[in-house]
Amino acid sequence: MNFSDSTLDQVNTALNEAQITFLSYKNLSGKQKGKFLRAIADEIEALGQELVQVAMGETNLPEARIVGERGRTTGHCRMFADLVEEGSWVDARIDTALPNRTPAPKPDSRKMSVPIGPIVVFGAANFPLAYSTAGGDTISALAAGCPVIVKAHPAHAQTSELVAGAIKRAIKKTGMPKGVFQHLHASGFEVGQALVKHPFTKGVGFTGSLVGGKALHDIAQQRPEPIPVFAEMSSINPVILLPNTLATQVEKTAEMLAASVTLGVGQFCTNPGLIIAIEDQALKLFIDSLSKRIATSSAGTMLHQGISDNYAKKLIHALAQKGITVEGKSSATAENNQGIPTVASVTAFEFLKNPSLSEEVFGPFSLIVKCKDLTELHSVVNHLQGQLTSSIFGSEAEIASYASLLNMLIEKAGRLIVNGVPTGVEVCPSMQHGGPFPSTTDSRFTSVGTDAIKRFVRPVTFQSFPASLLPEELKDGNPLGIWRLYNNEWKK
Amino acid sequence: MNFSDSTLDQVNTALNEAQITFLSYKNLSGKQKGKFLRAIADEIEALGQELVQVAMGETNLPEARIVGERGRTTGHCRMFADLVEEGSWVDARIDTALPNRTPAPKPDSRKMSVPIGPIVVFGAANFPLAYSTAGGDTISALAAGCPVIVKAHPAHAQTSELVAGAIKRAIKKTGMPKGVFQHLHASGFEVGQALVKHPFTKGVGFTGSLVGGKALHDIAQQRPEPIPVFAEMSSINPVILLPNTLATQVEKTAEMLAASVTLGVGQFCTNPGLIIAIEDQALKLFIDSLSKRIATSSAGTMLHQGISDNYAKKLIHALAQKGITVEGKSSATAENNQGIPTVASVTAFEFLKNPSLSEEVFGPFSLIVKCKDLTELHSVVNHLQGQLTSSIFGSEAEIASYASLLNMLIEKAGRLIVNGVPTGVEVCPSMQHGGPFPSTTDSRFTSVGTDAIKRFVRPVTFQSFPASLLPEELKDGNPLGIWRLYNNEWKK
Repeated sequence: MNFSDSTLDQVNTALNEAQITFLSYKNLSGKQKGKFLRAIADEIEALGQELVQVAMGETNLPEARIVGERGRTTGHCRMFADLVEEGSWVDARIDTALPNRTPAPKPDSRKMSVPIGPIVVFGAANFPLAYSTAGGDTISALAAGCPVIVKAHPAHAQTSELVAGAIKRAIKKTGMPKGVFQHLHASGFEVGQALVKHPFTKGVGFTGSLVGGKALHDIAQQRPEPIPVFAEMSSINPVILLPNTLATQVEKTAEMLAASVTLGVGQFCTNPGLIIAIEDQALKLFIDSLSKRIATSSAGTMLHQGISDNYAKKLIHALAQKGITVEGKSSATAENNQGIPTVASVTAFEFLKNPSLSEEVFGPFSLIVKCKDLTELHSVVNHLQGQLTSSIFGSEAEIASYASLLNMLIEKAGRLIVNGVPTGVEVCPSMQHGGPFPSTTDSRFTSVGTDAIKRFVRPVTFQSFPASLLPEELKDGNPLGIWRLYNNEWKK
Repeated sequence: MNFSDSTLDQVNTALNEAQITFLSYKNLSGKQKGKFLRAIADEIEALGQELVQVAMGETNLPEARIVGERGRTTGHCRMFADLVEEGSWVDARIDTALPNRTPAPKPDSRKMSVPIGPIVVFGAANFPLAYSTAGGDTISALAAGCPVIVKAHPAHAQTSELVAGAIKRAIKKTGMPKGVFQHLHASGFEVGQALVKHPFTKGVGFTGSLVGGKALHDIAQQRPEPIPVFAEMSSINPVILLPNTLATQVEKTAEMLAASVTLGVGQFCTNPGLIIAIEDQALKLFIDSLSKRIATSSAGTMLHQGISDNYAKKLIHALAQKGITVEGKSSATAENNQGIPTVASVTAFEFLKNPSLSEEVFGPFSLIVKCKDLTELHSVVNHLQGQLTSSIFGSEAEIASYASLLNMLIEKAGRLIVNGVPTGVEVCPSMQHGGPFPSTTDSRFTSVGTDAIKRFVRPVTFQSFPASLLPEELKDGNPLGIWRLYNNEWKK
């Protein structure tokens, strides 16, 4: 099915509608927003098998993955419903007046988070459900009290249309203002740019390429009023294998990494694209084992032609670099849109000289960097750009003996994993999915987990407000029963 | 005293030193950092009368103001010491493992805030102590675990040098690495730009003009790795007077506003530069009273020649706009560097047509906007740019009857005040000093109060870490006794 591109007039109308809606939607209670978010989950489930089939058809992803992703999507709708119904997320702080303080009395002062305004969300190619129309960006923004305008990803426009229909039914069912969610189609860049440039837009969510995310960030910063862009862009998720531990678990490590590199045809932002280790006999055995596993892995159909063409192109580029050895390659014959799992190796010496080897190859590829000693291992870690994740494989004692390496690694990533692969991102309060640039545009925020709501709020202080004019969250007696910092003490 | 400009080599050396220091300083405990911050306060106090005299000489500010500002400065040193010694500010979140969960086990996951790296702070002209060398930016960054490089404001370079000496003595006394604080002088822009562009710089604090702050923001966003700039720039802090209430308290309101407009020769970011009201008899009486008070107010010596020249220039520009009536002007004769308190009025009709009337005139000036009815009042509020603060004067009942006005006003400012002037910024957990652009570059953060520390941290998740490798804040048994979200429950 084809959807015609939205016009710039439609962009303008959508933002005007969103802004008007914002002024009422922002004041809804957590209970009201919770009901809405739960209705979205229900309506997505009510789409049943049709949604699964359409998404499979548009993305080439297998049924189990689509069903899993749908569960993740309805799961975060309900998680954010829980969060806003409970209410403590607004981070209320109350300092009561000290009228007799000298030299000047202290006024009553109360602070909480309020939503920032209309948010533009770009659907992600690689998550047709969990990071698209009702994805984490949309749902966390709606939970915060911000209207959302989604630009559907053209590669799964029909899936997006189905989910948008579900959200619109949830709006009707729960009596929400209809401008709280709007859905636009566009195949080119013009509509997206206009959405980011519109003065009523107050924030942007994006998951995609470094080029795309950086372009949106630049447009947003050059506006008369700069706005935040939360772009998740590019990460090669380095995995460090410590030598003594590797020697004891070559096969297990190779098995875990082979599975992680090829999972979902490598189309995850958390794909382990870089494996770093000290050159020794254990590493040789590990490379052999990993290579054999990759050689017998099957080629997978990628999301769409653009992604598989891009994978092929970037892979050729990477393999053509100086000092690269192809260690293992799936023996499958690539058919239409298929990605061939591949692992290669390079010395740390060559890796450090060549910045293009640090670039993401989006797909089932990983590069093994062979360090001749601990000094080179340090240099490689020091050389890393910002990452979503970084893993370290080693026994507790061995990792402890690499304390300064771990100390540097923390500067490079938003999530550190011991003895685990980076794929698999839990949706929970302790999740940080966002790391130093270029993995994301803002390492101080996460796009997964309850804290994702913090991207779309700002604090406001209400000074000397009469009780009746205060938001419920800040009233004396704590009518909502939320956690608040009350005169420097956390209380409920 | 003259200080020679730092060279670009010195900038580079300073950032290299800061980065090396960062890798150890970031791991110090809250207790160690607290000791350091308290020592800074002690050493500033130990400077005694010398600091007061030097600061008075460089800034023309009166003794009481300098002494007050010194108290504010040592006060925030000790406030941040309390904060990091207590430790809950790291916002720890812990989700323990569910090894038997299906289809996949849930890993142990723990998150906390960690410092982002070396921070560059620009001393502010209008706060030689509280927003300069040991100002809120410096102290909150040091509290977070970030080394700081201060570029002294050239208008009070000797004051800055004295305070830098105090910090350096505190470093020695508490055994801190010496690169944790460095101090550079520069009269031009080159050094500041180089500091912001340096790859080791991870954040910037600035208080000053819109032009200066926006320039630093643009440089920072155009870096290969964009970094956050926290610039507090420009705010005219609108004050809305509701008609029925004004009629009952003309003199009291005029007295409060006259005092606030002229306080510190109007050299506060929270100076009430705009007064908005509906045109009626009460407003006429109010303007008369305010004008008389301004006419008898004294001219005050401004911080330095540049500031007073700028005030004179901007004032002439504002008063030359179409439809402006000068209502009151201090009858004092302006001597060297003095600012003449002035109030003027304009109709909402003219105000809405002329964007230059929304620009800050830094000094003792306020513009009264006369609205012919409620519709025009709404239009004026809707037209406002982002502000640090906004005040509304009215009885509880009258404000309640202007609910949609208040609803819009919240979108325009970081702090809303009922029946109070904007000057006077409490240093406390509930303070939000930061509003929508152009008042600051990022309305989601505050530069005053305990939450100022949040500007200089990012969250990191530690997944499947053995206990011995976890930071103290995240260990089982909660050895630091801090508040943590443990399996979705706040606990100590």
